[in-house]
Amino acid sequence: MPAGELWQTESSEADSEQWLWAQIKAEARRDAESEPALASYLYSTILSHSSLERSLSFHLGNKLCSSTLLSTLLYDLFLNTFSSDSSLRAAAVADLRAAHERDPACVSFSHCLLNYKGFLACQAHRVAHKLWIQSRRPLALALHSRIADVFAVDIHPAARIGKGVLFDHATGVVVGETAVIGNNVSILHHVTLGGTGKAGGDRHPKIGDGVLIGAGATILGNVKIGEGAKIGAGSVVLIDVPARTTAVGNPARLVGGKEKPSKHEDVPGESMDHTSFLSEWSDYII
Amino acid sequence: MPAGELWQTESSEADSEQWLWAQIKAEARRDAESEPALASYLYSTILSHSSLERSLSFHLGNKLCSSTLLSTLLYDLFLNTFSSDSSLRAAAVADLRAAHERDPACVSFSHCLLNYKGFLACQAHRVAHKLWIQSRRPLALALHSRIADVFAVDIHPAARIGKGVLFDHATGVVVGETAVIGNNVSILHHVTLGGTGKAGGDRHPKIGDGVLIGAGATILGNVKIGEGAKIGAGSVVLIDVPARTTAVGNPARLVGGKEKPSKHEDVPGESMDHTSFLSEWSDYII
Amino acid sequence: MPAGELWQTESSEADSEQWLWAQIKAEARRDAESEPALASYLYSTILSHSSLERSLSFHLGNKLCSSTLLSTLLYDLFLNTFSSDSSLRAAAVADLRAAHERDPACVSFSHCLLNYKGFLACQAHRVAHKLWIQSRRPLALALHSRIADVFAVDIHPAARIGKGVLFDHATGVVVGETAVIGNNVSILHHVTLGGTGKAGGDRHPKIGDGVLIGAGATILGNVKIGEGAKIGAGSVVLIDVPARTTAVGNPARLVGGKEKPSKHEDVPGESMDHTSFLSEWSDYII
Amino acid sequence: MPAGELWQTESSEADSEQWLWAQIKAEARRDAESEPALASYLYSTILSHSSLERSLSFHLGNKLCSSTLLSTLLYDLFLNTFSSDSSLRAAAVADLRAAHERDPACVSFSHCLLNYKGFLACQAHRVAHKLWIQSRRPLALALHSRIADVFAVDIHPAARIGKGVLFDHATGVVVGETAVIGNNVSILHHVTLGGTGKAGGDRHPKIGDGVLIGAGATILGNVKIGEGAKIGAGSVVLIDVPARTTAVGNPARLVGGKEKPSKHEDVPGESMDHTSFLSEWSDYII
Amino acid sequence: MPAGELWQTESSEADSEQWLWAQIKAEARRDAESEPALASYLYSTILSHSSLERSLSFHLGNKLCSSTLLSTLLYDLFLNTFSSDSSLRAAAVADLRAAHERDPACVSFSHCLLNYKGFLACQAHRVAHKLWIQSRRPLALALHSRIADVFAVDIHPAARIGKGVLFDHATGVVVGETAVIGNNVSILHHVTLGGTGKAGGDRHPKIGDGVLIGAGATILGNVKIGEGAKIGAGSVVLIDVPARTTAVGNPARLVGGKEKPSKHEDVPGESMDHTSFLSEWSDYII
Amino acid sequence: MPAGELWQTESSEADSEQWLWAQIKAEARRDAESEPALASYLYSTILSHSSLERSLSFHLGNKLCSSTLLSTLLYDLFLNTFSSDSSLRAAAVADLRAAHERDPACVSFSHCLLNYKGFLACQAHRVAHKLWIQSRRPLALALHSRIADVFAVDIHPAARIGKGVLFDHATGVVVGETAVIGNNVSILHHVTLGGTGKAGGDRHPKIGDGVLIGAGATILGNVKIGEGAKIGAGSVVLIDVPARTTAVGNPARLVGGKEKPSKHEDVPGESMDHTSFLSEWSDYII
Repeated sequence: MPAGELWQTESSEADSEQWLWAQIKAEARRDAESEPALASYLYSTILSHSSLERSLSFHLGNKLCSSTLLSTLLYDLFLNTFSSDSSLRAAAVADLRAAHERDPACVSFSHCLLNYKGFLACQAHRVAHKLWIQSRRPLALALHSRIADVFAVDIHPAARIGKGVLFDHATGVVVGETAVIGNNVSILHHVTLGGTGKAGGDRHPKIGDGVLIGAGATILGNVKIGEGAKIGAGSVVLIDVPARTTAVGNPARLVGGKEKPSKHEDVPGESMDHTSFLSEWSDYII
Repeated sequence: MPAGELWQTESSEADSEQWLWAQIKAEARRDAESEPALASYLYSTILSHSSLERSLSFHLGNKLCSSTLLSTLLYDLFLNTFSSDSSLRAAAVADLRAAHERDPACVSFSHCLLNYKGFLACQAHRVAHKLWIQSRRPLALALHSRIADVFAVDIHPAARIGKGVLFDHATGVVVGETAVIGNNVSILHHVTLGGTGKAGGDRHPKIGDGVLIGAGATILGNVKIGEGAKIGAGSVVLIDVPARTTAVGNPARLVGGKEKPSKHEDVPGESMDHTSFLSEWSDYII
Repeated sequence: MPAGELWQTESSEADSEQWLWAQIKAEARRDAESEPALASYLYSTILSHSSLERSLSFHLGNKLCSSTLLSTLLYDLFLNTFSSDSSLRAAAVADLRAAHERDPACVSFSHCLLNYKGFLACQAHRVAHKLWIQSRRPLALALHSRIADVFAVDIHPAARIGKGVLFDHATGVVVGETAVIGNNVSILHHVTLGGTGKAGGDRHPKIGDGVLIGAGATILGNVKIGEGAKIGAGSVVLIDVPARTTAVGNPARLVGGKEKPSKHEDVPGESMDHTSFLSEWSDYII
Repeated sequence: MPAGELWQTESSEADSEQWLWAQIKAEARRDAESEPALASYLYSTILSHSSLERSLSFHLGNKLCSSTLLSTLLYDLFLNTFSSDSSLRAAAVADLRAAHERDPACVSFSHCLLNYKGFLACQAHRVAHKLWIQSRRPLALALHSRIADVFAVDIHPAARIGKGVLFDHATGVVVGETAVIGNNVSILHHVTLGGTGKAGGDRHPKIGDGVLIGAGATILGNVKIGEGAKIGAGSVVLIDVPARTTAVGNPARLVGGKEKPSKHEDVPGESMDHTSFLSEWSDYII
Repeated sequence: MPAGELWQTESSEADSEQWLWAQIKAEARRDAESEPALASYLYSTILSHSSLERSLSFHLGNKLCSSTLLSTLLYDLFLNTFSSDSSLRAAAVADLRAAHERDPACVSFSHCLLNYKGFLACQAHRVAHKLWIQSRRPLALALHSRIADVFAVDIHPAARIGKGVLFDHATGVVVGETAVIGNNVSILHHVTLGGTGKAGGDRHPKIGDGVLIGAGATILGNVKIGEGAKIGAGSVVLIDVPARTTAVGNPARLVGGKEKPSKHEDVPGESMDHTSFLSEWSDYII
Repeated sequence: MPAGELWQTESSEADSEQWLWAQIKAEARRDAESEPALASYLYSTILSHSSLERSLSFHLGNKLCSSTLLSTLLYDLFLNTFSSDSSLRAAAVADLRAAHERDPACVSFSHCLLNYKGFLACQAHRVAHKLWIQSRRPLALALHSRIADVFAVDIHPAARIGKGVLFDHATGVVVGETAVIGNNVSILHHVTLGGTGKAGGDRHPKIGDGVLIGAGATILGNVKIGEGAKIGAGSVVLIDVPARTTAVGNPARLVGGKEKPSKHEDVPGESMDHTSFLSEWSDYII
């Protein structure tokens, strides 16, 4: 990712999208040349398209279609939505960059675009969410269902998700109806942002900017996870977590204690540091 | 759900099924009118069918088919089974109502019928279970495999499941061969009812009526979870849990203590109260 | 499995493969005769093929194909790889036997070959891994993505996996890039062998021979799980676990204490004993 | 076909259908045993079914489906129609026998059932025709369109067709809206029974019992082809043809002359004698 | 077609297209209401679309796709072409009207749009032709191949075709590279406009406006069929045919004789009178 | 085709196949570069393959598959057959050259390989024929049926076909069980080589080397069409036709008269001269 600086000098979102799309095409061209067995796949998904939004719409349409929801219908739906809403395209660009920067296993932008179920589920969710707020709820829910079947990622179409979000591995993620996820958040697989019962209303977690949520964490109820907080893997969180603190365990407690929890300086959603609190924690629990 | 009272006055199961099917058709008709892009889907899955069993068989056949297990074969299998066994139809009706009543995100019966992977996996399981007890085991296991692939819900065809069961979100649920689940149980995603080793025999949990099992709970071995008990999210349960008590934690302990656990009055499988024990628990663990 | 002794007298891997293939065909023939509705499936997947490698390649090609990665392309890729590398075939044979011996729900070798998503995901991973070490990384990653979508099993193609490995139920398993899994290991569903942040390098767990990892366990970082160790269900492991010891809890601690952990004699990856440590554990935690 | 006599001793249509279905299953079983590569196909199309109507409905549903007309919908439609109308089943039986007796290339009943596009198109037409006379015209026309696309056989759903009809090779056959075809007729490929302009009304040929129409013959207008008449290959017929006479040429003339045409004794629709009139004709034209 | 006068008062092509599209939607809505089994098909192909070009592109994309040419790719290609070239849309409108007026079996515009393989093949050809003249020949030829496979209609992408053309039944039509077809022509099935050998250059027939070509007629070489001429069914034409004359027979001769052929007054391509020359012809040939 | 001379200097069949395959890859590479929308198709069908036999097997497998005859099964069958029989590969090479040389609309070898239904049907027939003579008749007939459905080309698997054969346009061709076609024959669309009744035995035409059969010609019975003979379009031939003579008309007569038919010098199957006999014929018939 040494080219990272390059695009940061770009001024506008459109330029950034152009730059990223050019990178993706260059990567795909290089891969198609080195691997003829994959070239057909790379041409159909990336190289035959004139823009990121067309490539993404094509890929999502073919991934999410079923015998009763045809790929052409979904392609049309995705293309119309991405074409008419630049904020969705900007969010996709930010998510691609997030994966590229934060996940050491992400070897290229095109790899993320084609293969990351978390990325794809999130982009499809953004379209479902747009349908939801346009009161096209049955269609939003049908799309939601396809995302849950195909990617095993279950994000309610009403949930609000920021930009620069990384769903790493993503299998088993569940995000409820009134959940809110801020910008630059990183969420590992099997994470639940769940509700608290059969009553409706605002009942799901609110995740602040820059939060990191470890694999298998379960956060339940209308709790607030403050900016830059960190939730340990496998934690069960039923309480508010202040900004820049760490919650771990089942049930989760704040590292450093409820009264004066330890504060960290980095942005864990970006640094992806899952385990540095190990020593703190060990100290705490013993 | 203001119409809820209506059907409770119906006397027979068949009437109840009729009433529900009429609701579903009305919902689908309304949605098809308001959303032309979804109308084709709604007609093929619901509006072109003359009964709930035909609609469900069609939908499951198309969801679960593969290139080596054709949709027509599965449709035939589902339709023959649902047509000839009214108890399976009654269970489907009860499950639809359970989702409608307990899940605030369930906006309509048709939404559940079409889109809830937990509901669909459970109905397909009921057919696989029937095949299993008819000693058509290879077919039951092939169906089991398709359900596990398509919905990421892995219920052994020998497992026995009651009526009015809600598998909410459902991704990652695993239910072992000798497990038993009672009536009016609610089970969240990532729940495991697992075995204890490589020995055969009766080795999986028995879940009483009205139990609520929170997201990510793991219950292992031939333990008994009593009627109306509640298992906290993320718990690892290796012990019997008495009726109307709550078990939480990893390893799970009874709230209120082993000797005199606290008893609650409601039926948590119906009330879906995941978090009211929070204060009790916090008290307990600190 | 009374015939188990038979094959143990066979000298070579090829003989073992022959013997197993003959068993599989006999099982499939018996099932096809008893269940005409399944016969077409059994003929296309097993009975029309002349070898295990052809059957497996056909089945994986049809399971993992998509509209942009055709079954014929995948079939070709699998068949060429399995045909040219006898170690992959031997590993498949060892994995089939492992499932048959360790999982009491495994009624036959053919049941595992056709229906076990863990087995199928693992065999497809072995091919992806071979592509990876041949520097055919884009193709390896595309295959990885298909395995993650279809089976909800996410094993990075660079991860190294031994023989005789059982991924039981398998949904939600995540294995990171630098993870290593030894021989005769058993891993339940929802298990994570994860990394520790955004830095590259050797950052995932190393699992010794004969280890058993319970459902939902999360092991993070470049830690060493010694030979024959046992990780309790739902544990969150951030520490090395010595050979033949047991780690449980969130965060995981060694049963018997850090200083003098209890040692067991059996090979838990083979005995699959998930729960005998229950009494030890209960003692420990109270 | 030495077994031919056997069934002629059967009294009822149902017995005849039973007998034929038993033959077909025996043939398919024999073929499946001798050719494993085809066994999957034979099981899915024939051997897994309990009756001719189920096998035929399954096969037609899978042949005629498209991405917008699903196989399950068509299967349902065919099965309901064949199940409820024994005359359609009797016609299918008579057509199978006709092919078996008249076409020396027809090696078995199952060969005809599976592979003869003329047979399959005709059975699907019978269903479309039934829909037509029930005033379900849009569905009849959609089915008509699929038959024309898949088999290149274009029979208007209003056309009336008798029993024991053989469409040999069948590609390119066109039969217009008001055409009528009697019993025991044999029609080769590329035959047109066409209209005469843009006016509606009764405008297509009426083909008597036992007629033989050679390849590429074009019969236009509301003309009457008498019982047992023979139409030479490539003829263009715009005139009535008396019973048991032969018309040949472009434009077609009666062999033997308009005033006293030669009469033959056999039933050419059954004897399939395309060319014995060669000498007559040669005499006539020179 | 009593509403026919209505649209003739419309001034522009766009108005005409609007009017026709409104008719088609009204027809489809009526049919969907009367036939639930077809409603899904009608919604996906017509009622979910906002314009004729979208409906047609969707339908052609789904009809012509294959496992190696995806529906989404074709849909995109058709939609882009129809959207950017109003003359193609006007030609489609004229062809729909031609079928509606000239073919008494055409019960509605929507019937033609959905089910007439001649209509669909012709519209797809217009797109292939546009690609051809843009020098995108490999793509034009791939499309040509799909049309020939799916509809058995083989029109070289370089062939030039006018508006208001009816390919009735259409199976087996072959139109060569340098053929030209005028406006308001009607061509029955099995018609060949073929070349004369292996030399390139201008070698196929030129068909004037208003010509009618009967079923199975073969016209070979760079001959000129004059305006309003009529070619009898089954004719083999190797000569120029003057305007408003009729050629019949194999080899074709002019009715009335080479020197003073009979002239007719109507436009046979529109009147569709295939057989009125019967008496003339009979007189001529006897 | 200026490179034509090049390969004629190659000595062996294998060299010829190598040369042709290199040409095809070069053509496809050029087309993929100029037309990104087609690149995916070209990579999957040609550029990802290492030999002509693999490309052809892949393409035929995908073209001829159905929901009950999977592409992987057919691919395997084609690949095994083409790999093990060099004469089939040599025939394919000769057929590709024949199309390239004789058909002015054939712009490249790759165009023929991908898009010519006559070429593809013929190669698939060669495999079906091989199965037939190996007594694998049910499989041969199933393949025959798929070819007839997909390409509308109906060649009985027992028919014997030489090398360097061009089926131009091909739709509607019917070739009977005991027909024989020599080398370097050219056959246009709608041609029938048919039988003469319901008796078995040797009953279909024998076509000598270098014969040209015009569009829509019907040749019936065990007649002999001598080397280098020419059959006019639309002819109905019931007689032997001597070498290097021309038969035309319905019924066909020899040009020049039965006693002393005109002889031509060229090889019409190669020169493709359909119409030079026009003047002769006109003279003859007037």
